[in-house]
Amino acid sequence: MLIVQKFGGSSVANKERIMNVAKRILETQQQGNQVVVVLSAQGDTTDELIEKAMEINPKASRREMDMLLSTGEQQSVALMAMAIDSLGGRAISLNAMQVGIDTTTTYSNARIKTINTGRIEHELEQNKIVIITGFQGVNKFDDITTLGRGGSDTSAVALAAILHADCCEIYTDVEGIFTADPRIVKDAYKLDEISYDEMLELASLGAKVLHSRSVELAKKYNVNMVVRSSMTRAEGTSVKEECKVEKMLISGVAADKDVSRISLIGIKDEPGKAFEVFSLMAKEKISVDIILQSVGRDDTKDISFTVAKSDLDLALKVLEENKERLTVKEVVHDDKIAKLSIVGAGMATNPGVAALFFEALYDAGVNISMISTSEIKISVLVDEKEVENALVTVHEKFKAATASMRKM
Amino acid sequence: MLIVQKFGGSSVANKERIMNVAKRILETQQQGNQVVVVLSAQGDTTDELIEKAMEINPKASRREMDMLLSTGEQQSVALMAMAIDSLGGRAISLNAMQVGIDTTTTYSNARIKTINTGRIEHELEQNKIVIITGFQGVNKFDDITTLGRGGSDTSAVALAAILHADCCEIYTDVEGIFTADPRIVKDAYKLDEISYDEMLELASLGAKVLHSRSVELAKKYNVNMVVRSSMTRAEGTSVKEECKVEKMLISGVAADKDVSRISLIGIKDEPGKAFEVFSLMAKEKISVDIILQSVGRDDTKDISFTVAKSDLDLALKVLEENKERLTVKEVVHDDKIAKLSIVGAGMATNPGVAALFFEALYDAGVNISMISTSEIKISVLVDEKEVENALVTVHEKFKAATASMRKM
Repeated sequence: MLIVQKFGGSSVANKERIMNVAKRILETQQQGNQVVVVLSAQGDTTDELIEKAMEINPKASRREMDMLLSTGEQQSVALMAMAIDSLGGRAISLNAMQVGIDTTTTYSNARIKTINTGRIEHELEQNKIVIITGFQGVNKFDDITTLGRGGSDTSAVALAAILHADCCEIYTDVEGIFTADPRIVKDAYKLDEISYDEMLELASLGAKVLHSRSVELAKKYNVNMVVRSSMTRAEGTSVKEECKVEKMLISGVAADKDVSRISLIGIKDEPGKAFEVFSLMAKEKISVDIILQSVGRDDTKDISFTVAKSDLDLALKVLEENKERLTVKEVVHDDKIAKLSIVGAGMATNPGVAALFFEALYDAGVNISMISTSEIKISVLVDEKEVENALVTVHEKFKAATASMRKM
Repeated sequence: MLIVQKFGGSSVANKERIMNVAKRILETQQQGNQVVVVLSAQGDTTDELIEKAMEINPKASRREMDMLLSTGEQQSVALMAMAIDSLGGRAISLNAMQVGIDTTTTYSNARIKTINTGRIEHELEQNKIVIITGFQGVNKFDDITTLGRGGSDTSAVALAAILHADCCEIYTDVEGIFTADPRIVKDAYKLDEISYDEMLELASLGAKVLHSRSVELAKKYNVNMVVRSSMTRAEGTSVKEECKVEKMLISGVAADKDVSRISLIGIKDEPGKAFEVFSLMAKEKISVDIILQSVGRDDTKDISFTVAKSDLDLALKVLEENKERLTVKEVVHDDKIAKLSIVGAGMATNPGVAALFFEALYDAGVNISMISTSEIKISVLVDEKEVENALVTVHEKFKAATASMRKM
């Protein structure tokens, strides 16, 4: 088998962890596999480099930032090759230029276009373990680019896709994908499997284990992904197209506190008003999430929507500036809210799921201010202070319901 | 004019120094020059990376060491480009792969073969300051190589040669080439000029300001080098083919403590014996410096020579193993010695120089154990404890003689 293994920054943060990971990689090879490894920069290296750059030039160009940051992964791969060598294995490190990972030109947030597999295949044929820098590529100007936060996951999946790897193992500091954040919900448990779509919803809802783009890529090329811990031998969670039938009614519950709500009160009830509002937001590159429109008592309507907390000030400024043109009477906002979501593939065909969700929220005494639904998720806005309590209650309810369902 | 400026690790060790150097580079450009900059890794970065590697694998492969160490210079060049940008300049950083600095395949000690000037010239045409990683190149396998200690000087001179630069300025933490080490000899003074050959002798005699290979390269391509301080505005020392006539009788006095002497006593006086001894040393890659052969009283002879202290044990081992074949009666050694040398282009045509040298040593009461001369230098071996005293006395003598000569 050909296996791609990706280890994050905390998995290679110091000598002990590097040796631990090196052993694991070597074992995988000794079991008769070809192994390609993708690494992030060690521990806080990237943050330290960013700090160094900001001291010198707070407006440093993205091109030079990428030149600087890409050194972190190069150090990781060289050290890992040395570690594997010291255990008697044969390894070779390669950076993005050496492999030929071609990306778009956008610095700091490039996308992988193609990967040249020649050098990798050559080294694999020599029975070497190939250790590749994650997070980076090269654009058509021969400049180094980086892929944005979580980009090493994307590097790993892209390599697995183009090499037709049998599996792409993403090693992190948690044991897999959980039904809820185990730091908040004590009886949250690890899923054996999750579908690409469910994983995508969870990732975009604040579950930070996998970067969305890597899951999108895995779905597109049908890459068999496994998320597991580099510290334990636990099995992890498989991310794939189709999942086994027997499982909890939902795949997970997620809370996201990076949400604020804006309400535009008293807009003239004319066609095109909503379009005007959201094209203004799009022009400023502000992502809008849940949208709700209500018809008012007179000839006006109210439009509410959510944006990330970091975009709130800009959004309010733009809306105030255009208040008259938009015929808005009043712009109000609330940044003390959070989004609570449940995700599950069977949701649309199982009306009981929504009922159970709202029953749990009622049990918890939580007030709901907005609701949004899709094929595989239901999100509600609640008071920021109540979201963790709500998360625990909802998770308990679904766990109990799943258990009683299985007994039948 | 096209100027290549090289700054060493201490010149870019922290934010303040980077900004200071950035200002200096920008000034050079604003005076109407095109500027190519070569940088070393910041401060102790290289040593820290070596330590990190040694902890993981004390026998780390040289290929992986080069992969690791080359990140130091890449960080420097990115940070410098940001610094210049922050001052309103336009700069771009390039690593050895991006430039196309082709080297031999030898990891950790590669030599530059060719440099592709296309990208550099393209960026210079855009009025950009081009910041290039020193110390590194790429070999025919697309692997990163490094050029050995002091390799950034060599990178700078090679770039100056191939770009036909008008000047190659080497910035260090001293103000230029001195007639002797100013930390030992208080009235040592800075030379305005020195010839390539004299500089080569001084470099190989323990003056650590410039790496020998960079001077060899400068001589070969007649590159106009200047050694000066990055901290002050002092003029520095010009290294060139021909020098002005009026100057001290000698260019410098140097002491080197990394010397040990081996004597082979009672070798049969037959042709080819010396050859056998030195081919043994060559096989073990041991550099031999001063060689002295003396005819003994019977039909034997003694051969003495010096090696670096780090090579002593290996040399002794090999010699003992071959004692019988070499017909050596006894192998003795002394590692408590030092080499004192004077260097000057006019030496061969001015017999007074040697006399003055030995007179100074006599004045200082220093015993001489071996003497070696060339066209432009005289070296003597003296007791390690006496070398600094001898250095001061010799320097005084020549300074006084030069002064009285000028009065005439």
